[in-house]
Amino acid sequence: MAVTLDRPYDDVVPAVREALAAQGFGVLTEIDVRATMKAKLDVDVPAQVILGACRPELAHRALEATPSLGALLPCNVVVRSEAGGRTVVEAIDPDAMARMEDSPVVRKVADEARVRLRAALDALEPTTEES
Amino acid sequence: MAVTLDRPYDDVVPAVREALAAQGFGVLTEIDVRATMKAKLDVDVPAQVILGACRPELAHRALEATPSLGALLPCNVVVRSEAGGRTVVEAIDPDAMARMEDSPVVRKVADEARVRLRAALDALEPTTEES
Repeated sequence: MAVTLDRPYDDVVPAVREALAAQGFGVLTEIDVRATMKAKLDVDVPAQVILGACRPELAHRALEATPSLGALLPCNVVVRSEAGGRTVVEAIDPDAMARMEDSPVVRKVADEARVRLRAALDALEPTTEES
Repeated sequence: MAVTLDRPYDDVVPAVREALAAQGFGVLTEIDVRATMKAKLDVDVPAQVILGACRPELAHRALEATPSLGALLPCNVVVRSEAGGRTVVEAIDPDAMARMEDSPVVRKVADEARVRLRAALDALEPTTEES
């Protein structure tokens, strides 16, 4: 799931955090890709952050049903800078994760996560959208 | 990819970190699932940690080829306590991630990541193994 915004990266990152919080997602992990690549490999890449979003109640239901689901958590939401001052926000589609597990509970949890992530992306008022 | 060890969780977590480091994976993120569930929902779940493992050189190659790949990074490695003093270690299969992207570079990077993750799991001297 992806949206493109005509706003600079530094504006979009806090907006994404707010949109996720409004849908009940906490950000449990955060990887500053640009800083990591600079520190580890001394290469310059466009600004990018990988946010690990988790709605604890959904994660709990999924893990109760399928203890091995942890490897698919949290839901990654990526914000990355593009040419022309645009910013792309991408979220892993929980449906793709659910397809790896054969569980009706996981399917239901993934459906709810998907609706909430979609709502968070839509709240950013994207200029273009791809699902 | 999963292995089960006849060793307690508290012993296995540092062993997993060492095995990942030996294969060139840094741990960029870490979620203590038990602590998070206790803090957010006040529920008790078995000990479990989700480690976000990343080999920066592989991540860089993958992101250069497919900028949207960030949503599939890092490679999650889960350590969780099971009944009977056993501990399960599970890693997301990079092949499953590569199948979401149609890129020969991503495929190659995923293959290398898979070999290295497999080697890390095998280094733990598992009692039983799946895929």
